[in-house]
Amino acid sequence: MDKNSIPRATIRRLSLYCRHLAEIENQETEYVSSRELGGGIGTNAAQVRKDLSFFDRFGTPGRGYPVSFLRRRLEEILGIDGRRWQVAVIGAGRLGLALIDYGGFVKHGFHVVAVFDNDPKKIGQPVKSLTIEDIINLRAVIKRCKVDIVVIAVPAKFAQMVASKAVDAGIRAVLNFAPATIVLPSEVSLRHVDLAVAMESLSFHLLG
Amino acid sequence: MDKNSIPRATIRRLSLYCRHLAEIENQETEYVSSRELGGGIGTNAAQVRKDLSFFDRFGTPGRGYPVSFLRRRLEEILGIDGRRWQVAVIGAGRLGLALIDYGGFVKHGFHVVAVFDNDPKKIGQPVKSLTIEDIINLRAVIKRCKVDIVVIAVPAKFAQMVASKAVDAGIRAVLNFAPATIVLPSEVSLRHVDLAVAMESLSFHLLG
Repeated sequence: MDKNSIPRATIRRLSLYCRHLAEIENQETEYVSSRELGGGIGTNAAQVRKDLSFFDRFGTPGRGYPVSFLRRRLEEILGIDGRRWQVAVIGAGRLGLALIDYGGFVKHGFHVVAVFDNDPKKIGQPVKSLTIEDIINLRAVIKRCKVDIVVIAVPAKFAQMVASKAVDAGIRAVLNFAPATIVLPSEVSLRHVDLAVAMESLSFHLLG
Repeated sequence: MDKNSIPRATIRRLSLYCRHLAEIENQETEYVSSRELGGGIGTNAAQVRKDLSFFDRFGTPGRGYPVSFLRRRLEEILGIDGRRWQVAVIGAGRLGLALIDYGGFVKHGFHVVAVFDNDPKKIGQPVKSLTIEDIINLRAVIKRCKVDIVVIAVPAKFAQMVASKAVDAGIRAVLNFAPATIVLPSEVSLRHVDLAVAMESLSFHLLG
């Protein structure tokens, strides 16, 4: 399977399906139809079938998908089946520190193992069980801590520079929270979290 | 038009189309095809046409969509055409404070006008041009500041409680950053920002 041929939106929906399946699993539902699963995340049955068809035949004709089995398989596909991912956060400002605290990451196996800044007043300070590292040592710390994923939480104007440095140090997955466009080599997975997108879905509905 | 009949995923893509149109507008492109616009955000031409068909006929047969016009129309539809939205943040922890700082909100017209906490040590403290308010005064401050949208940035176990209080105070749009499921009356627009979803798209690609 060529992972790059699978639409990003499909991968995003796999995560949402997982969340929904975990919820209905608690209600002791054994099977779920494409229509119910789609409805749970705001899409339709055809989209569910198409998304899942990239991977396998999960359903039983006439009964739907077995809830627990499908959740476990999707977790395996996404790499959140108990596996541990090592994450480094670049930028120890409010956003960076908030992300280190964010309970939703650890819950899915994403552990922040290093944090960087360039401010001499911050370098060496403790944050939870970590110490803020000098960005100068990015490459060495990334190697030592076996970092898989780098999170960019610096001001917009520095985002491209620190992302490129991380890629030079061997990183293949970057999550950008800075409100800035970053360009990286195509073999690097890059996602931009634009917090205003969710906000705009609300303003859309509030409009007269 | 019944706004509730439009899929959430469509609204989310309208924001992404806007971002992409603004980028190519800087490159002085006059027209863009459905295929190019879709490709820019990781979807296909048919999806672009379907998403836009909920609203209007924007394209010119054979030429595509006029870039500047389409961007402006989508901004109007989303309510980010220079309009000012008043936002309150509940929870003055690291995440709440980071959201007050987040440049991406102001850029699209979302202004944080109030922040709340229940910690006596935080209440009364200044944050940028604001003062942290006692959550006890939620209703009064929401009315006084004419708040449109409430952002939940409290620990997971308090998320439902504060969201319900905001709705009791007249709020119709809630953005939840707490890693917790919230249930609100159906007439309230509720979005959950799950920061781990973007992370899982990276772990998917990193897997062997």
